[in-house]
Amino acid sequence: MMLEFEIRRAQPGDLFEIWNILRPMIRAGETYTFPRDMSQKDALAYWLAPDHQTFVASDRSGLVGTYYLRPNHTGGGAHVANCGFVVRESAQGRGVASTMCIHSQGIARKAGFTAMQFNFVLATNEGAIHLWEKLGFETVGRLPEAFNHPREGMVDALVMFKRL
Amino acid sequence: MMLEFEIRRAQPGDLFEIWNILRPMIRAGETYTFPRDMSQKDALAYWLAPDHQTFVASDRSGLVGTYYLRPNHTGGGAHVANCGFVVRESAQGRGVASTMCIHSQGIARKAGFTAMQFNFVLATNEGAIHLWEKLGFETVGRLPEAFNHPREGMVDALVMFKRL
Repeated sequence: MMLEFEIRRAQPGDLFEIWNILRPMIRAGETYTFPRDMSQKDALAYWLAPDHQTFVASDRSGLVGTYYLRPNHTGGGAHVANCGFVVRESAQGRGVASTMCIHSQGIARKAGFTAMQFNFVLATNEGAIHLWEKLGFETVGRLPEAFNHPREGMVDALVMFKRL
Repeated sequence: MMLEFEIRRAQPGDLFEIWNILRPMIRAGETYTFPRDMSQKDALAYWLAPDHQTFVASDRSGLVGTYYLRPNHTGGGAHVANCGFVVRESAQGRGVASTMCIHSQGIARKAGFTAMQFNFVLATNEGAIHLWEKLGFETVGRLPEAFNHPREGMVDALVMFKRL
């Protein structure tokens, strides 16, 4: 059964639930390059940084996911967007990441971005790679052994890119 | 004639000369993704950020170049270093960039980094690409039209990588 959810801008009242989504991902250290012992304060300061637009996906049970959109660079690189997506563990398999990614592309286009880049997709994360490819992203780079995975050791990371 | 220069850690007394090296590069907007109108304060705050080790190359005339070394990511990506190098315009062609890059690799190895990555080398910057290749870096990614060059329009950027 696919439950419906809506995507909207994050609000101050969402912070506790956003942290509950980020915390297991950060503590596991298996996807993003955050320090595994990163504090709640530092994690939220990053996720909702001044140059980030931060969104949440919510249903009647609460938040099921969150993402940020930001310029990947400033200056001559400011037309390329970057996003980070995290889905609540108990909400995985419901299309939340896919829906957030499609949403982010619409927001990015409206904001004037002409491309979107993911800087660091683990080569072992086949689910994510398959999803991003389905949504039009191409692998444009491969960083050899750029990630020290707690269980798998050194793994490659991919750079993925889509023109908007 | 090759003048000799030494490389040492940046000190507070170097700030004015570091800015004099960074400013023309930033104002030109043709190499790094800094905003072209970036202030002295913001530029120095970035160049000498708390997670950067910042060095200068100096000869009897003053500073001829500067570079920073930092972890390219935290967490599982913290073993890969990233550097930024800038040579004073009037000191170009004297091997300053090459010498700083070799120096940075030694510092990076001592600090425990096992690789070095350049995230954004303009595909049109043939001098830099040739130099990094000569020093052992390989192109591992190509970001299509990722840089809006003030004179050349949209140009590709390369991701370059070297195991240390």
